[in-house]
Formats: sequence, C-alpha cells, structure tokens
Amino acid sequence: MQKRSQVTITIDILEATSKPQNKMRIMYQANLNYVRFHRYLADFLSKGFIEAIKDADGKGFYRITQQGKALLEVLRKANELGYSI
Amino acid sequence: MQKRSQVTITIDILEATSKPQNKMRIMYQANLNYVRFHRYLADFLSKGFIEAIKDADGKGFYRITQQGKALLEVLRKANELGYSI
Repeated sequence: MQKRSQVTITIDILEATSKPQNKMRIMYQANLNYVRFHRYLADFLSKGFIEAIKDADGKGFYRITQQGKALLEVLRKANELGYSI
Repeated sequence: MQKRSQVTITIDILEATSKPQNKMRIMYQANLNYVRFHRYLADFLSKGFIEAIKDADGKGFYRITQQGKALLEVLRKANELGYSI
C-alpha cells in the first residue's frame, strides 16, 4: 500500500466528520492509529476546521466547520493537481 | 523564527519560478539549503509543477507551469484558511 500523503489524510479526516461522529468512528474511517489521529484532531480543532459538539445526552461528537469545508474543497483540488506532501 | 510549513515552502518555490530563474536564485529566494531544495525541485519537476527550459545560449532555467500556477492559487487559499503541514 502506498503511503498516504498528509493532504490525503487531512481529506479523509474532514470527510469523516461531514456528519457529527464520535472520535472512534472518525479514527477508523480515516484509518489512523490512536496517537496520529489525536495529533491531527487537536490540530484541526485548534485551527477551527472541526468543532466539538454535544448532543442532548451530553455525548461528544465532532463535526466539520464551514472553514473546514472550504479547506476540504481546496485540498481536493490540490490533490487532483497531483500535490502530495 | 517559526518553522515554515511544507505548504508555505511550496508556495515560496513556485513564486520564485514565476519568471524563468536559474537554480541558485530559486534556492536563495525560497531560502532552502541545497539538499532540501533539490528534493523539492525533483519532486515538482516530476509532477509537472515546474518545467526546465533552456535559453538560446543553452543556459538552463526553471519556470512554473500552468499546472503549477493552478496549484499555487489553491495552496494560497489553503494557507489563508490556516492549513499548515
């Protein structure tokens, strides 16, 4: 299997949060190990690409923000153009 | 000085090739050491973001391609959105 680029990993995480999801589902969907996933998650939360929300029962979820959606669109274009770092 | 992201380095290299430039000028303008610069240059040539050209005297230059220009625009947007990897 070819190593995924950081751009592709970012796309995978952002796509996994298009609906509110819990941490584990995002982690599995983005196919990352625990440590790497949490590093990305903390980074994306701090930059405002993803937001933490709670449902009526107080359960925590994560969801892509408007800024994250804009970034997702831009990174898909970069990917199409062959950019992979 | 804050560490430049790979996105920012890519932008700096692509901007440095907006006019045909020789290697050393691009390297200095992008502020990279010899090894790192050549790694990026080989990568961007192989992906078609930059092309090698020769003038009438046979001197070698490098110049951004249409694909590289499209990528530059996309990465500037990613940068504005706060993406830094």
